[in-house]
Amino acid sequence: MALLLFFFYLSQLALAYGSAVKFLPGFEGPLPFELETGYVGVGDSEEVQLFYYFVKSEGKPEDDPLLFWLTGGPGCSAFSGLVFEIGPLKFKVDVYNGSLPTLVYNPYAWTKVSNIVFIDSPVGTGFSYARNNRAAQTGDLKQVHHLHQFLRKWLMAHPDFILNPVYVSGDSYSGIPVPVLAQEISNGNEEGIKPIIHLQGYILGNPKTVPNLEKKLKIPYVYGMGLISDELYESLKRNCNGQYQNVDLNNKACLADIQYLDECISGINSAHILEPDCGLDSPKPRKTGRRRYLDGHQLLNDEPLPPLACRTYAYYLCRYWANDDNVRNALHIRKGSIGKWLRCNHGLPYNNDVPTSLPYHANLSAKGYRYLIYSGDHDMVVPHLATQAWIRFLNYQIIDDWRPWMVQSQVAGYTRTYSNRMTFATVKGGGHTAPEYKPAECFAMFTRWISGQPL
Amino acid sequence: MALLLFFFYLSQLALAYGSAVKFLPGFEGPLPFELETGYVGVGDSEEVQLFYYFVKSEGKPEDDPLLFWLTGGPGCSAFSGLVFEIGPLKFKVDVYNGSLPTLVYNPYAWTKVSNIVFIDSPVGTGFSYARNNRAAQTGDLKQVHHLHQFLRKWLMAHPDFILNPVYVSGDSYSGIPVPVLAQEISNGNEEGIKPIIHLQGYILGNPKTVPNLEKKLKIPYVYGMGLISDELYESLKRNCNGQYQNVDLNNKACLADIQYLDECISGINSAHILEPDCGLDSPKPRKTGRRRYLDGHQLLNDEPLPPLACRTYAYYLCRYWANDDNVRNALHIRKGSIGKWLRCNHGLPYNNDVPTSLPYHANLSAKGYRYLIYSGDHDMVVPHLATQAWIRFLNYQIIDDWRPWMVQSQVAGYTRTYSNRMTFATVKGGGHTAPEYKPAECFAMFTRWISGQPL
Repeated sequence: MALLLFFFYLSQLALAYGSAVKFLPGFEGPLPFELETGYVGVGDSEEVQLFYYFVKSEGKPEDDPLLFWLTGGPGCSAFSGLVFEIGPLKFKVDVYNGSLPTLVYNPYAWTKVSNIVFIDSPVGTGFSYARNNRAAQTGDLKQVHHLHQFLRKWLMAHPDFILNPVYVSGDSYSGIPVPVLAQEISNGNEEGIKPIIHLQGYILGNPKTVPNLEKKLKIPYVYGMGLISDELYESLKRNCNGQYQNVDLNNKACLADIQYLDECISGINSAHILEPDCGLDSPKPRKTGRRRYLDGHQLLNDEPLPPLACRTYAYYLCRYWANDDNVRNALHIRKGSIGKWLRCNHGLPYNNDVPTSLPYHANLSAKGYRYLIYSGDHDMVVPHLATQAWIRFLNYQIIDDWRPWMVQSQVAGYTRTYSNRMTFATVKGGGHTAPEYKPAECFAMFTRWISGQPL
Repeated sequence: MALLLFFFYLSQLALAYGSAVKFLPGFEGPLPFELETGYVGVGDSEEVQLFYYFVKSEGKPEDDPLLFWLTGGPGCSAFSGLVFEIGPLKFKVDVYNGSLPTLVYNPYAWTKVSNIVFIDSPVGTGFSYARNNRAAQTGDLKQVHHLHQFLRKWLMAHPDFILNPVYVSGDSYSGIPVPVLAQEISNGNEEGIKPIIHLQGYILGNPKTVPNLEKKLKIPYVYGMGLISDELYESLKRNCNGQYQNVDLNNKACLADIQYLDECISGINSAHILEPDCGLDSPKPRKTGRRRYLDGHQLLNDEPLPPLACRTYAYYLCRYWANDDNVRNALHIRKGSIGKWLRCNHGLPYNNDVPTSLPYHANLSAKGYRYLIYSGDHDMVVPHLATQAWIRFLNYQIIDDWRPWMVQSQVAGYTRTYSNRMTFATVKGGGHTAPEYKPAECFAMFTRWISGQPL
């Protein structure tokens, strides 16, 4: 018995991955919440080291749900979710003068009512790193497999949280791995893999789900938002027959319409169609789709700072902050583990091996998991119309039909609940990462939903 | 000859309606532009006294165009156009403490490049008044007739401007009287009525034009903007057969859909669907359409101030300012002429006797007048889809097709030009009174258009 306890003690020690962070450079005074950072080794010989930020709930950490949060990309650091979306810190946006950017408290943090583990995943994201080149190769399925290991190991190392209700969550590209991860957790639980993960469901914001559908419904979406003319919309429908990708090269009329469409929207900030497109440095709209996507996501170190009024300005501040040596020390970053920290690393060797996560949604809700899908309605990357379309395809019974949900007596968006414990919500005026644009509203949405109340 | 000159001198005296305003209470120092206010008597015995604010161009007043500007309603003071939309003054929005609200200079005033006469029309609007009850009765045609007299008399009294190119203009409800006025001016010129008014064209923002069409296209509009579900939209189309007003009371399915639609959008600020609805003082959305319209327009004196973050706060400041005795003296308001000044007087005895201004557009462009129609694309009162629809109905040849127009390297909206010298433009993110929401963009739009350049 004494021997058993001894081994248990040893295993606990071995699993204690994280370290408390009491102070952070740029934030005045001690942090007013509990933060722990650390690495969890995954893969056969722990050749992949996934970095995480764990923020304990400011409510009742022992009872509150435990969220595992991914930021999309793939390749965007979970720190982005922490400081720009749902975490308790945010950057104070001041002109960068070479000194360390300042962090302040975010009163709309979801960590007021939940414990959140922000995970830099897949490998190569944020501070996560691989110990060899082979391990740096990743993709949807590999990422999910690693995350599943991560969750089990993390829970083993944090036995206080092993009985808390668990939600996997994220936004944008996370719409692909999160449902797959939920499925893998569910399967693992059924197979009796220890520890049991008390998965209750998942949360996704503007999630990539059926990429072909999202591309297709971008067209009625931009029409509805007034970015193309009635005539072009009618012409696109007529000439392209609902087929806007991989168009037959002989279909000149459709190709011409698509080119015209691209000319109309190429100067638009796809993450929020009303905000300035801060990637634009010349008056001529650019035409390459890939580049557009990067504007809001990848900012290279040698690019000049955007205008202060740009939302992307804070992304630059974030880069300066996270690449500061004192910051890295405070976060317990292992020396020599990675070079430059990128908010979003779009250069990952990544295999998109899950073409759509739709079947996973269907499987999971058959198993009784609950989930919240929200859509910032001014996002052109994953338009709410596409999200509505795949939800409709699932053909669940509506139990609380489309209605406004209110925050401070204002319509914050629209919501609808289905018999399969699934809630959909739009966030009116929100962009691709809705809590970044509408923090108070999204905080209210999350708080209501996580506590089982209607929005 | 001496006698003739004497009479000429007398007539000039009689016609000199206006007085210069060098200082305005609430504005620090002398006004940095030339302002004149005054009354022009119209009607058979001048029983209607129309008040105006004339702001001389800060550019080249002798060459710059002369705009006559109406604010809509009917019943909204042109002062609203001056301080909230296109004039050189705006309110500094501070907490009202009982002292006079402060005015500051608006750098995006259209008066930088044009002379503008802001007219309180019809009678009963702003500081305009009737000398007897019969004269207080007004309507579309009577208003237009009075405005035509106003313009001729005003030009007679301002002979320096008699050769300047003239544009009649306004927004919202002005979409009805302005084209009718343009037609009447054109007819008057053809009949040789003196003075000839050098009408070049007209400018209209989110103009009421074909009210039935605007009500009908509100439905695809709110669908496109994400305020109703796919299912409700399909159901409305199916059940109501495109007929959303005066629905057959036996058509229960359509009536139910319309009621549901109203529940979805009744909490939305119709002047800008993303801004707070500051008329809401209880969490339950209200249902009466009329009341919704008033929120942005009529604010009664005994209502409490809205939150400072509301756009309507400045409308209250405006009311305190315009009802101050020193202000009235500075503006040369005749004592006892009106009681309380209202920004919008919706209690006018008004006869809507022009059901649609569409035929006037058709006639006028056949005569070669040029015009600019712009639509703030986040306005639910007169949705851009409806404006596009009636323009399409006119069937003019497109000479510069739908494309983004740019301000400071950003897409400010979309524009299209027709062979009949007509330009249409959306203002991306703009509300019902687009220059109020997007001042820099609308200033650029106007400046380019008025000087004959493409947007």
